[in-house]
This record gives sequence, C-alpha cells and structure tokens, in this order.
Amino acid sequence: MLIKRLAIIGVGLIGGSLARALRRAKACGKVIGCGRNKTHLQKAVDLGVIDEFHLDVARAVKDADVVVLATPLATTESLLMAMQGCLKDDVVITDVGSAKGSVVSAARKALDHHLSRFVPGHPIAGTERNGVEASFAGLFEAHRVILTPLPETTASALNLITKMWETTGAEVVHLKVEQHDEILAATSHLPHMLAYALVDCLAGMQDRDEIFNFAAGGFADFTRIASSHPQMWHDICFSNRKQLLKALDRFDSHLNTIRSAIKNDDSDALLELFARAKEARDKFTDQRGKRNNDSTE
Amino acid sequence: MLIKRLAIIGVGLIGGSLARALRRAKACGKVIGCGRNKTHLQKAVDLGVIDEFHLDVARAVKDADVVVLATPLATTESLLMAMQGCLKDDVVITDVGSAKGSVVSAARKALDHHLSRFVPGHPIAGTERNGVEASFAGLFEAHRVILTPLPETTASALNLITKMWETTGAEVVHLKVEQHDEILAATSHLPHMLAYALVDCLAGMQDRDEIFNFAAGGFADFTRIASSHPQMWHDICFSNRKQLLKALDRFDSHLNTIRSAIKNDDSDALLELFARAKEARDKFTDQRGKRNNDSTE
Repeated sequence: MLIKRLAIIGVGLIGGSLARALRRAKACGKVIGCGRNKTHLQKAVDLGVIDEFHLDVARAVKDADVVVLATPLATTESLLMAMQGCLKDDVVITDVGSAKGSVVSAARKALDHHLSRFVPGHPIAGTERNGVEASFAGLFEAHRVILTPLPETTASALNLITKMWETTGAEVVHLKVEQHDEILAATSHLPHMLAYALVDCLAGMQDRDEIFNFAAGGFADFTRIASSHPQMWHDICFSNRKQLLKALDRFDSHLNTIRSAIKNDDSDALLELFARAKEARDKFTDQRGKRNNDSTE
Repeated sequence: MLIKRLAIIGVGLIGGSLARALRRAKACGKVIGCGRNKTHLQKAVDLGVIDEFHLDVARAVKDADVVVLATPLATTESLLMAMQGCLKDDVVITDVGSAKGSVVSAARKALDHHLSRFVPGHPIAGTERNGVEASFAGLFEAHRVILTPLPETTASALNLITKMWETTGAEVVHLKVEQHDEILAATSHLPHMLAYALVDCLAGMQDRDEIFNFAAGGFADFTRIASSHPQMWHDICFSNRKQLLKALDRFDSHLNTIRSAIKNDDSDALLELFARAKEARDKFTDQRGKRNNDSTE
C-alpha cells in the first residue's frame, strides 16, 4: 500500500477528490480529514471520503505518512506552523495551491528539519463548484499535476508524491517554482481576472437583467470561471501577485492593439491579430484533442 | 406554406442552418443559394440544404418571396445595391448581422422603395465553426432572435420574419437598433476581443507551446470563441465600433479596479468585486437553466 495513513487538511473539491481517487485505487489505508467546519467534515465521513476527522490540525497529522494541504493559500503558513511539532520524522507533506512561490516561502518559515520532506504541488484540475459534495474520483484523470520540488526536497519524498498523483490517473510534471507561477498567471489567473471583470462590468450596466438575458453560449462558456470561489481567488491573487501583475500588463498591451486598430481604422492590424490568435487557439485545440485521445487509449 | 421561394445569400453556418430548419418544418418551397464559391454552393446542394444556386445575386433573388442576407457585414451595402432592381415588389428582405446600426445605414443607402420591406435581424446563436458543413436544423432552438424593425418597416414584413424565426424554434424579440448594438457589444463583441487578446498574449510569450500545454479546462472554455472567423469579427468590430469602444472602456475600468486592489493590497475591494461578479454569474446560470428547462417542456 502506497500510503498507510493519509491526512487531508481541507476536505473540499480537491482534497475530497484526491481521497476518493486514492481509495478507488486501494492506494491508501486510513484517511483522516481536518477542517474548521464539523458539518462539512461529517458529510465527508458520510460520503465515505474520509474515515474520521479532527478539528485540530496537530491531532489530524499525528502518525500520518502523508499530509496533504488542500486549504486556501492564505492559511498555509499557520497550518504548517501548527502541525510542525506533531509530524512523524519520515512524513511527506505536500499541497495543492495554485501559486507556489508564496507556499515555498511559508514552508521555509514554518518547517524546520521537515523542509526536506515537503513537496510543493499543484493539480491543474478543478471545476467552478466547491465542497466535498462536488468531489469525484476521476477529477485528475488525464490532467497535469505540477510538482515544484525545493533543492532540499529528498528524492524519496518527491517519488512518493509523484506516485500518489500518478495513481489518480494524472500526468506528473516537475517545474521550477518561478516557471510554475509565470505559466499559471498566464493560463489560469489572468483568465479568471478577465472573467470576473467582464461579469462585474455587465452587472454594473443599466438593465443588467435584460443584458444577461441576451447572452449566448459563448458568453456562458467565457464567464463560467467567474462562478469560482471568491476567497480562493482572492488568496491566489495576492499569493501570485508579481506574476499576475506582469500578466495583466502584457494582456493590456494586446487589448490596446485591438482597441487602437478599431479606433484608427487599421483593418490590417486587426485582421492580423485575430488570424494569429485563431491559429494559436486552433493549434491548442488539436494538441488537447490528441492528448485526450492518447490518455484514453 | 410560409415562404414559397427563399433566397439565401451566403450559405454558411447561419444561412445553411436557417434553410435546414425551415425545410425540416416544411415552411419553405424552393431554396436558392448565392455566394462567391461554386464548390461551397455545390456542397450545399449535395447536402440538401439548397435546391440550386447562382453566383450572381441579381439572378438569385429574382422571384424570391424572402431574401436572407447571411454574409459578412462589410458586404451588406453592395449586395443590397446589386439586388435592388431585381426584387419583387412584395419581397421581404432580412439579414443576420451581429451589428445593426451599420446594416440599417447600408439599407437606407441601397434600398429605395423596398426599405419598408426590410427587417434587420440577428439570431443569437452560432458556434466557432464555419461553413455549410457545420450547419444543422436545430441551431436556433431555444435561442433568441432579435429583430430591429425601422419606422418604415411594414407590419406584414415584420410578421413574416417573426414567424420565419419562430418556425426554427427560436424566441423572437424586438429591440431598437441602438439597444441591440449596446447589448451585443457587452455580451458578445467585448468577450470576443478579450478572448482574441488573451490567446494572442499567450502565443507571444516565450515557450508558447509549453504554456498552452499547461492550460486547463477553464482556459479552453474561455478561449473557445478565439477560434471564430477573423474576417467576420473584423467586420463586426468596425460595424459596431462606437458601442464596442465604449464597452472596452467600461471593461478597462473594472479590470483596473482589480489591478489596483492587487497592487495596493486592498483585500476588501478585491473580495467585494469577486463576490459581486460570482453572484451575478450564478444568477445568470440559474436564469439560463430555467429558460432551457422551459423550452424543452
């Protein structure tokens, strides 16, 4: 068995789906949940996602072989601090946060000799729904999981977490912390900002109800991610602030190219940008199609 | 029979789907196609979408009871001009353009006494795919079609086009030209600009292939519309330029609120905007869900 005793701190969509996937693969023994809300945790027990729970993180991680932090980014440092004294020597700790630079800083502050047992991680999967009720064992199948090991991380810790994610059906990739944060700012954090800003922009217009009534399928797809969890995204913004601000600036200059072309009747510039974007998007669709086909073979 | 002889100028996704829907409902007799590409038009005949075709628009509209313009917006004026002398007195002309102000100007310039037989229209439906091969009879079901009649438009012309669209399963709404253009700028044209700008922004980064490989489902949904037809969107931008520039400015101020909040550590402002947007988006999903349920009953 890969993990005898697994502690999941934060039993929501991601934490819950991970527990379900590992259970389905018979890759873990006892699963201990931890969180702040007793009702939610009891729900997770009732759903068979976890075996038992503690509200106190120190008790939850006691004797655990693997500890997974699946909580909002802002809580990382205090949680690591709180569990520090109760961890087994050979425990492996990992997290699922969408920004890695801030998590690594938190770990360096909070963890002492356990730093070598810490493997920062980020599964590129999720839906706009939240909570253990939305969790399912197949969430990570054919999705990427990025691990950003520290220079201090031991090979055995990295191997265990790599295997853990592979067991869920995910494809594991190792990246540098800065690489992760730059890429995710562009492909995930920036689009979320655009979706939030767009919906807020429309909601602020006169006749807002009428306006939403005329929105077509494209709009629904485009703004789906604006239904994501506000607190979670608030934390991500501040955790990946530097890269996100850079991405916002880059985006601005491209949107300004479009605006100027429309303003100045620059037909060629507009057509060129649209054609270039369409080509890149179509290529992305092809690659994605290929990857999804490969993964089902 | 609602329409004995129907001329479709531009037999692509929209024109082709309209012909298919009316045929399915046995609401039209002969369907004449018109376009610039003989191969595409022959394909439309082979697929049973149209009965015959002409490359010359004057010949295509001869004896037609209804003429539907389903061509790029930039061609509207010259096409109306070219058909002007060959139209039956009691013909009804309509179009499917995504901007209505420019279409109305074109009609006022090109159409003489037939202006009263013109009904500007816009079905809020489509996919990012193009061409008659992508057309299907159900495209307009449970979707809205906006008609923006002129003061000169006769009731009989408006009634016929309203019935035509209702026959396809669409819900027909009448709006003023300016209302249409403001609403569509916000719900459709602006999101397309954002998707194009985002994809172009990512495609311009170093390691672009790697970056697209890390994009998750949210990104795929968000940028789907960037695969739309560049020439079509080029035309829409210039046709609805005034309202689109206004919408871009409004969007900018909301994105700037987010950027400033991140820059200035204004946790409350960020959380407030995200929560407000989520609420509006969730409400939109509920309404949409209700409407779709209603329409299938």
